[in-house]
Amino acid sequence: MQAKTPSESVAILTDLVLPGETNPLNNLFGGELLARMDRAASIAARRHSRRITVTASVNHVAFNRAIPLGSVVTIEAKVSRTFKTSMEIYIDVWIEDRESGIKNKANEAIYTFVAVDETGRPIEVPAILPETELEKQRYDAALRRKQLSLVLAGKMKPNEATELKALFTE
Amino acid sequence: MQAKTPSESVAILTDLVLPGETNPLNNLFGGELLARMDRAASIAARRHSRRITVTASVNHVAFNRAIPLGSVVTIEAKVSRTFKTSMEIYIDVWIEDRESGIKNKANEAIYTFVAVDETGRPIEVPAILPETELEKQRYDAALRRKQLSLVLAGKMKPNEATELKALFTE
Amino acid sequence: MQAKTPSESVAILTDLVLPGETNPLNNLFGGELLARMDRAASIAARRHSRRITVTASVNHVAFNRAIPLGSVVTIEAKVSRTFKTSMEIYIDVWIEDRESGIKNKANEAIYTFVAVDETGRPIEVPAILPETELEKQRYDAALRRKQLSLVLAGKMKPNEATELKALFTE
Amino acid sequence: MQAKTPSESVAILTDLVLPGETNPLNNLFGGELLARMDRAASIAARRHSRRITVTASVNHVAFNRAIPLGSVVTIEAKVSRTFKTSMEIYIDVWIEDRESGIKNKANEAIYTFVAVDETGRPIEVPAILPETELEKQRYDAALRRKQLSLVLAGKMKPNEATELKALFTE
Amino acid sequence: MQAKTPSESVAILTDLVLPGETNPLNNLFGGELLARMDRAASIAARRHSRRITVTASVNHVAFNRAIPLGSVVTIEAKVSRTFKTSMEIYIDVWIEDRESGIKNKANEAIYTFVAVDETGRPIEVPAILPETELEKQRYDAALRRKQLSLVLAGKMKPNEATELKALFTE
Amino acid sequence: MQAKTPSESVAILTDLVLPGETNPLNNLFGGELLARMDRAASIAARRHSRRITVTASVNHVAFNRAIPLGSVVTIEAKVSRTFKTSMEIYIDVWIEDRESGIKNKANEAIYTFVAVDETGRPIEVPAILPETELEKQRYDAALRRKQLSLVLAGKMKPNEATELKALFTE
Repeated sequence: MQAKTPSESVAILTDLVLPGETNPLNNLFGGELLARMDRAASIAARRHSRRITVTASVNHVAFNRAIPLGSVVTIEAKVSRTFKTSMEIYIDVWIEDRESGIKNKANEAIYTFVAVDETGRPIEVPAILPETELEKQRYDAALRRKQLSLVLAGKMKPNEATELKALFTE
Repeated sequence: MQAKTPSESVAILTDLVLPGETNPLNNLFGGELLARMDRAASIAARRHSRRITVTASVNHVAFNRAIPLGSVVTIEAKVSRTFKTSMEIYIDVWIEDRESGIKNKANEAIYTFVAVDETGRPIEVPAILPETELEKQRYDAALRRKQLSLVLAGKMKPNEATELKALFTE
Repeated sequence: MQAKTPSESVAILTDLVLPGETNPLNNLFGGELLARMDRAASIAARRHSRRITVTASVNHVAFNRAIPLGSVVTIEAKVSRTFKTSMEIYIDVWIEDRESGIKNKANEAIYTFVAVDETGRPIEVPAILPETELEKQRYDAALRRKQLSLVLAGKMKPNEATELKALFTE
Repeated sequence: MQAKTPSESVAILTDLVLPGETNPLNNLFGGELLARMDRAASIAARRHSRRITVTASVNHVAFNRAIPLGSVVTIEAKVSRTFKTSMEIYIDVWIEDRESGIKNKANEAIYTFVAVDETGRPIEVPAILPETELEKQRYDAALRRKQLSLVLAGKMKPNEATELKALFTE
Repeated sequence: MQAKTPSESVAILTDLVLPGETNPLNNLFGGELLARMDRAASIAARRHSRRITVTASVNHVAFNRAIPLGSVVTIEAKVSRTFKTSMEIYIDVWIEDRESGIKNKANEAIYTFVAVDETGRPIEVPAILPETELEKQRYDAALRRKQLSLVLAGKMKPNEATELKALFTE
Repeated sequence: MQAKTPSESVAILTDLVLPGETNPLNNLFGGELLARMDRAASIAARRHSRRITVTASVNHVAFNRAIPLGSVVTIEAKVSRTFKTSMEIYIDVWIEDRESGIKNKANEAIYTFVAVDETGRPIEVPAILPETELEKQRYDAALRRKQLSLVLAGKMKPNEATELKALFTE
């Protein structure tokens, strides 16, 4: 299976915030944003693997900035690292100012997807080749996140998590 | 006001087709597609004008190919021509094959938006500078469509529609 | 197949505008209106043909008047002309004043539907017999619109579009 | 205030059943039907009173026949009786056979609405003049239903409910 | 079949009121509340019968208090009485004050569900054993409501409705 | 401010999975589940703090088991730990078997909410008093999760994260 770059499978979902998608404070409802990110991320995972993909976990979502009614929201989802059958997808969310056109980062999220065959069994995915500085940084951090996730789930002993251990003991 | 290219304001809305968005034949419901195109087109219009924009008309939508449940749909909306206060937006819709990754054209649509100021009055928009061959072709055809629209609405006499007249009399 | 009048298949969809169906200006969201018109028009097409029908194109929609939150909106869809396997549906949209009860025209739209058999192949539809003055007028104009649509799609040469040609050369 | 006939305020909501509106048995979801009837009935109440109206109660809804995915559903809402500030609305729901065009009754419902002024206080509504046999029958029965509702709510003593009493004692 | 208590099958649906679920007065839209109550009630019916259940009728819903945007709404659905194959479900709706935490009753409703087997035929359900004072009261009143419903539907003669007759003649 | 127990603010959201809420594999769409959990969790946070609350982050969601169309899904959200102005909410998701009534764990998630005053500034929340064994376990783990989150966000140096450090160095 040939390795691919993140830009080969990047998914962009630009959309508006309409009143039916807000919370009582007139900002984009958090649940709606989580759903949109899930849609964009699953497209990136599917483009990379060319397989059916299912959400395995949401690893982290930071809601740094409320997204007001009427905003233009751009969601960009990219494969940040692949493991045997799973793909970590890094999602950046931007809102843009109507008058200046300047984009500001609103949110960031990390989801994990698994590729499955027609019978639902996990199946191998192509490797990823990070290109930009940011892609490389996220690629490296992904292993620590993976170990953390396994440690927290009780599926890996802390002292086997070499990447993490180094972080806390050096 | 400085003229801009279509690529400066292109809006891309990539999304899935979920069961709640289908018709009884298990394809994307036409009304849902019309709504998504309206969202994408209004973002392109807003990015070009940096103004509040409102849908003035839908000039043409051709449903050439049904979009099945589970598809990845890419909607690309670009300003094809501007008039004093209005913008014609050309929309291309693609679906991609999961296994081969090949994209096929599913639909095409033309919407018109008007830029308005805070009081709702039409306001001038920047000119557009088509760059690619396709952008130039659509730019030229837009004037004929504009005249057609005026003739059909009874706001222009057929013999004043020079562009159209040429088409039928040469 | 027996010809039918437009009133035999007219479809009326009266409904409210709730907050979840608005745009950030507190008017009915354009995409939602396009979807409602698609639903009403497809019912008229189905009633006329008694067949499965699919949206073939949206030929024209003029958004003349914003429809505010809380409005009562009446959508009336009628077959304006039939061709071999297709039906042009003319849609009138009205909003009514709560206190006076007076109805005002808000929008107008033209959609085209094709009747298909169980295997999805186009199938012949009954002819239409316009009765009122308005129905006759729209029936006549439909042929010009049909030719226009074919010319614009490159499927008919301008000089073969006899109806249109007459319009621009007389 | 001038009395009006039911046909002056009748509201017709014809619509499709799409997959996003079904239950797991592939029929129209009951809650969605209740919502559509509420929308149609509130329009009839508003047209009759030319006031803001609010749902006061749902008095009876019988789900006699499941409405399958893909159906054309016609909801017809008519004022059946008025009291000082309230209106009983009788709703008939029909589904039609695509091939024969025959309409069958699917459901029936009775809702009550109250007219209010801008401050939310109940305000008098015009009287209703039933015309057809069915309208007269429903008009008569409405008083019994009103008494029933008051008795069940503990706001009327059974022996004061003269209409009802007659029903059970004659 | 072993009888069960109402608390064994009670269903609690606590949820927010978001802008997309309101009416133009900024309160929870009546149709949305009817739908939520249908969902909660059908879960109680299903838990009691452990069968597929379908909504047979809505017997009464009183909208006593508007539920404002942003409210926390608690819907509690309990089996109030069972008949051979049907279950009456009593629904209480509460809203709570954010600052004091005090819950106030907003609405009350009665729905009836029928248990069906895989072929859709009505099938017997377990008896219910009311425990609290309120449960007993509602259990007793259910028989009167059942008779009323039959009398109003013309399926029982008034003088056979012994429970009701007693109410009006004593 | 008086400390409270988790059971004082627990929020239960029991609901169905209808076709409009599924993915193309006929299971509950991941984004819809994320939204429902957000709604339930925000209610628990609001009940505990009696303040306006906003989602600050989603710390972890594990999708262990697909939730099929037609399921009854119970979401239980409880405050697991409070910090100065924030609350960690632990969410358990269950599906139940219709015939046996047995509940199985489908998912687990951790969200963090912040309490804010009317001007949007973070405001102190009451402490939490875990009671059950599970509540105590989650309370303890919450501190490690908090440190992790700070370390990953670059707001705490690894060697200051005493709880975490112990985990990897002992």
